[in-house]
Amino acid sequence: MELLTENTTNGKKVQILLEELRDRYGTKWTTHLIDLETDEQKKSWFLRLNPNGRIPVLLDVTDDGSVISIFESSAILAYLQQSDDMHNVFGFGDAFEKSQALQWLFFWHSSGPVHGHTRHFVKGAPEPTPSEYFQKAMLRIYGVLEAHLSGQHSGHPRQYLAGRGEGKYSIADIGTWPHVRAYRSLGFSEENDMRPFPHLLDWVDRIAARPAVQRGIDGCKYDSEENPGLHVRAE
Amino acid sequence: MELLTENTTNGKKVQILLEELRDRYGTKWTTHLIDLETDEQKKSWFLRLNPNGRIPVLLDVTDDGSVISIFESSAILAYLQQSDDMHNVFGFGDAFEKSQALQWLFFWHSSGPVHGHTRHFVKGAPEPTPSEYFQKAMLRIYGVLEAHLSGQHSGHPRQYLAGRGEGKYSIADIGTWPHVRAYRSLGFSEENDMRPFPHLLDWVDRIAARPAVQRGIDGCKYDSEENPGLHVRAE
Repeated sequence: MELLTENTTNGKKVQILLEELRDRYGTKWTTHLIDLETDEQKKSWFLRLNPNGRIPVLLDVTDDGSVISIFESSAILAYLQQSDDMHNVFGFGDAFEKSQALQWLFFWHSSGPVHGHTRHFVKGAPEPTPSEYFQKAMLRIYGVLEAHLSGQHSGHPRQYLAGRGEGKYSIADIGTWPHVRAYRSLGFSEENDMRPFPHLLDWVDRIAARPAVQRGIDGCKYDSEENPGLHVRAE
Repeated sequence: MELLTENTTNGKKVQILLEELRDRYGTKWTTHLIDLETDEQKKSWFLRLNPNGRIPVLLDVTDDGSVISIFESSAILAYLQQSDDMHNVFGFGDAFEKSQALQWLFFWHSSGPVHGHTRHFVKGAPEPTPSEYFQKAMLRIYGVLEAHLSGQHSGHPRQYLAGRGEGKYSIADIGTWPHVRAYRSLGFSEENDMRPFPHLLDWVDRIAARPAVQRGIDGCKYDSEENPGLHVRAE
């Protein structure tokens, strides 16, 4: 395995688990350090490994000999625990406990950016206004999804976020779509701000066309004002 | 299964997957709607199910008859896909593709809050300053971890984030610890701001004491300035 990292908060997560696995199982890997000051992680060779342009990235070899690239620090932890922790020392065999670990990983994965924003603003932000700062951050995120779907870095366009080839509609799309479709609520217009993201807009429409998706967002069914009978509250 | 939801962006994710599972497998569940305007999700009965005080929450019954509560929308998607999608229609059997779905779920799970902050500031935030807004958000997050570790809602104190009983050191802790330990970088002091979180601070120390953790964050080993030989860059 090859680890591409730098000693940041997110890098440390994977570094720690690999060190734990070495103590327990003698797990071996090679470390490569990425100089963030020169933006090495924004160069095309790195974006092919992670379209988000962030460390850490883990490279591994599958049974059929192909090299795979894994990104998002928490997803790397889950992958390594599955692949290299055969006695579940750092994870769980039981389905509920396994899910519990994932729940807390997700809890922190959405809290980590709040940590980052706090630091940004506590330090005294150079940006003109917070809304411009976050709109810019949001457009960068749309750009990552656009690049992934259009195949900008990989050379392979795809229909859905996960799966080999063109990908397959999956929980990855379901977990992403409800936010992305709501870009107008952020002050973005289809005609102007969203024009650089044609593959992403097609993906929004592709998923919106599914009957189960339409039922799943139906206010008549899932809104408590519309359905007082489904209300649950404390006595 | 029982779904506690409301028709928000995060609620929609789980609503959609359940609707998809119904179309494919005839999956059954009961929907309960939570009135967010009256803060039903902040009441003690709800906090026992999810210490984060957020919808959606899924209740399920395990093989041994005990009721389990699952929170964090993306973790619920992964749980449902594992438990109810036996033919992997909305997920993957292959380890790499399965990891790929998880990578994109994590990517969006950290992007969702950016969506929220953008909307907050675009609408014109009432808070005095962004740094106060984020410090407050961060202290709330520490409070969720403190309540979980102290057993405030559950009545059961624990040593680690995931696992039955007192919990077990796992990838959930590893994925959370590097950020939490760095609270000083957010302008928080142990003596004042962090005083309401004694169990969390004990947890920080407990994990810091592990040799692999100390090696995993060692700048002499993982910092590119200290290790020019481990640098990797484009030609």
